[in-house]
Amino acid sequence: MNSIKDGWFTEFSEMWPGQCMSLQVEEVLHKEKSDYQDILVFKSKSYGNVLVLDGIIQCTERDEFSYQEMLAHLPLFSHSNPKKVLIIGGGDGGVAREVLKHDCVEEVHMCEIDERVIEASKKYLPQMASSFSDPRMKLYIGDGFKYISQHEGEFDVIVTDSSDPIGPASSLFEKQYYELMKKALRPNGIVCSQGECMWIHMDLIKGMLEFCGSLYPSVSYAYTAIPTYPCGQIGFVICSLDPDTDFENPPREISPADTERLNLRYYNTDIHKCAFKLPEFARRVLKGQKSKTSNCC
Amino acid sequence: MNSIKDGWFTEFSEMWPGQCMSLQVEEVLHKEKSDYQDILVFKSKSYGNVLVLDGIIQCTERDEFSYQEMLAHLPLFSHSNPKKVLIIGGGDGGVAREVLKHDCVEEVHMCEIDERVIEASKKYLPQMASSFSDPRMKLYIGDGFKYISQHEGEFDVIVTDSSDPIGPASSLFEKQYYELMKKALRPNGIVCSQGECMWIHMDLIKGMLEFCGSLYPSVSYAYTAIPTYPCGQIGFVICSLDPDTDFENPPREISPADTERLNLRYYNTDIHKCAFKLPEFARRVLKGQKSKTSNCC
Repeated sequence: MNSIKDGWFTEFSEMWPGQCMSLQVEEVLHKEKSDYQDILVFKSKSYGNVLVLDGIIQCTERDEFSYQEMLAHLPLFSHSNPKKVLIIGGGDGGVAREVLKHDCVEEVHMCEIDERVIEASKKYLPQMASSFSDPRMKLYIGDGFKYISQHEGEFDVIVTDSSDPIGPASSLFEKQYYELMKKALRPNGIVCSQGECMWIHMDLIKGMLEFCGSLYPSVSYAYTAIPTYPCGQIGFVICSLDPDTDFENPPREISPADTERLNLRYYNTDIHKCAFKLPEFARRVLKGQKSKTSNCC
Repeated sequence: MNSIKDGWFTEFSEMWPGQCMSLQVEEVLHKEKSDYQDILVFKSKSYGNVLVLDGIIQCTERDEFSYQEMLAHLPLFSHSNPKKVLIIGGGDGGVAREVLKHDCVEEVHMCEIDERVIEASKKYLPQMASSFSDPRMKLYIGDGFKYISQHEGEFDVIVTDSSDPIGPASSLFEKQYYELMKKALRPNGIVCSQGECMWIHMDLIKGMLEFCGSLYPSVSYAYTAIPTYPCGQIGFVICSLDPDTDFENPPREISPADTERLNLRYYNTDIHKCAFKLPEFARRVLKGQKSKTSNCC
């Protein structure tokens, strides 16, 4: 919580050695140590309010839409008829906000370990946390790993909106978690998880795609741009129980009129298709790990 | 030149208020004040050697390939037979290195205003500056604006690899420069310029596409990811004299085998096509400015 100096917040981490991003702070709005992590919310000069957990930027009001929309809509538009969705993590409410834009979705269950993140988000990130008041939302406070092990065959889509693999979310990057998610899915179900950044975490991504490939018949990796995450980019590990899933050609497409009506600011169908087209340095490393259904490898 | 503190270089600028990137410094290799700008080269902890002009990161050895490849190959693969190419700026040599990978290119003329940048790059960025020894390279030291006004109807492709529109490169972002480039092109010629970042410079980009649209029949905007540029992203303004140019479906494609043979680390044909697919927030602002040949708007 001592990462603010001379009016600037700086994000140092051993996960991205030798580089860091700083944001100018106008006002510290909230600081606390919950049972799980340090929570900080500050008003920044140019990115709106910023949520920080254990010193790492989770979201800013200015650019959160890119991550939240892609994490939610990549799996949801890849599924022909998602009715029941589970979100693990996602305490700021932003992913739920996006999932709820799908009229076909009847229930959104969310399991977040840290209630204090939800409370801080309701107060300081109201455009993300607005989703908590939706009647289709069912919120559970607890461990996502445990929650998922108690729900078999229930969900069409499971979205894991976690922090990085250091701290309370570390188990969500492991094979056992993907085994449990597989059991919690309905037939032809899809999972999509925060999948780190190909510029700095290629070994982690490669390892995850390897074990996912041993569990799911369709596996791919996508990415989006987001200025306030390390290297300006974050990825997504996406897997389907349906061997015919072609993530790059989703069964449901959204019209330009609907992207405006639903206030999509990043996602559109072209962006969906391109999110799976990897730059050469990544394509060469990951081509063996991605499933045959991907066109790009 | 006082932007190194406690072993970290920090990139502050009014062009991106309230945010900055820092890189850990292992050793300052070179510092000088040329006739045009402050030149700094340092060895970073995790991005190799880094070239900085007037306090702004121009390139790092670790991620330069993304920018250099896209700035060069987007226009070159969009042209059916580029033989004579002009590079304005590009003193580090990286764009020339990429242009020279095209066997059809017979001559590369480069006009760089600051000879000291070339000298520093030859010494500290040898993988970029290797291009200067190629027999197809003709190097001129001088003002790009003036150079272009003296060469009419000569070039198939003009690539402008400039710094930001504050400082010696400011005239390269103005309408008059695009008028001069138009005159310097051969029939069906293409220009491609560093086009700033849509997350922070949308007004500038919109303005450039507006005046380009009044000069060239085909105009588009593309972008790439690059960790050490502000927001992790940089764009390209690309224009063609040929009204039938479809930038998103280039007349020349590169095979996976050739991407490996030519040591392309970012560019491939899928990446080319996707570079023009804009996220919604940008698509809505720029759709009026991009030419009809673009599929994405």
